[in-house]
Amino acid sequence: MVYSEKYTSWTRDDILTEVKSKMKIQRFEHILRVEKSALELAQRYKGNLEACSLAAILHDYAKELPKETMDSIVQEEQWNPEILQYGSQIWHGPAGAYFAEKKFGITDETILTAIRDHTIGSEKMSLTGKILFVADYIEPGRKFPGVQNARALAMESLDQAVMFKITQTIIHLVEKGILVYPETLTVYNAWVRNKEEIY
Amino acid sequence: MVYSEKYTSWTRDDILTEVKSKMKIQRFEHILRVEKSALELAQRYKGNLEACSLAAILHDYAKELPKETMDSIVQEEQWNPEILQYGSQIWHGPAGAYFAEKKFGITDETILTAIRDHTIGSEKMSLTGKILFVADYIEPGRKFPGVQNARALAMESLDQAVMFKITQTIIHLVEKGILVYPETLTVYNAWVRNKEEIY
Repeated sequence: MVYSEKYTSWTRDDILTEVKSKMKIQRFEHILRVEKSALELAQRYKGNLEACSLAAILHDYAKELPKETMDSIVQEEQWNPEILQYGSQIWHGPAGAYFAEKKFGITDETILTAIRDHTIGSEKMSLTGKILFVADYIEPGRKFPGVQNARALAMESLDQAVMFKITQTIIHLVEKGILVYPETLTVYNAWVRNKEEIY
Repeated sequence: MVYSEKYTSWTRDDILTEVKSKMKIQRFEHILRVEKSALELAQRYKGNLEACSLAAILHDYAKELPKETMDSIVQEEQWNPEILQYGSQIWHGPAGAYFAEKKFGITDETILTAIRDHTIGSEKMSLTGKILFVADYIEPGRKFPGVQNARALAMESLDQAVMFKITQTIIHLVEKGILVYPETLTVYNAWVRNKEEIY
């Protein structure tokens, strides 16, 4: 795939080479599966294929970067340092969006926001944002209990699949006694308030 | 039971008559069972029997009061009106503490705080606070799945029973797709951070 100039001057192959160099092979393969699932969802829900491909192949770019890199970004961008407490699971989204822009020259806000919010979701998500959020959850390599339900829901209603991921993620964290990033609950409550629109 | 003057000039009988007049008989009976469980826990964990009795018989005083009453209190006390969005399940604790002070003349902060926080808990809870929080959850009339676990835990460790209630409450709300009051998550995260001290 060659991307439109308005998105990036990088080719997909060059992006993948750079992405691959920053992580374990298992994660790189996960990224390719997320892209595949994202493109399938984009076809089903009339999403933007280029935007979904770019968001997918860049979404985990920062996942294995050292915490020091995130410390520098938080300082440089003057983000709320609270985010550092919650581990890379929470900060790799915003950090990924940072590199998508600074390194890969992406300026499209829909793509950047989809990457930024791909872990916790957000109150208002674009179609690309929902597709990445769900694709990351249901890609064929995922094996958690309930993934079959998530895949079936994703075929029926993208919004219901988003809500399912938001809900199950909180339940999973609380069952395990893991800290929950407060924004995760804000997103959950926003989706509960909008439920009438979803169902 | 006649309470020490430092707590209130009301007798237990007079408080119960007033409490009973403000609610359905089922809720009044729940309150008596909470008091019984609270006194048992107070004996086991060397709590203050008078404080636990008062906190228990007053904890749900505001549960069936009309929302207009809470609107007035929020205005009078200049509380954050956000609390009104989450329903009486969330506001009856703070409103109960308000009446414990204004109507029943209780000034003991431990009792008032135990009543105020009995639904969502708090980051730091007194022994009386923990006893009321757990007694309300395990009193013999409770029938939810997991109540047997909660009762068994309460006999072993009051802190573990508090953590269990905090955790299960969030899971229950999220499974049902009900709004979660943000402070509930703050309390959960605080207890997760302090877990090493509990287990």
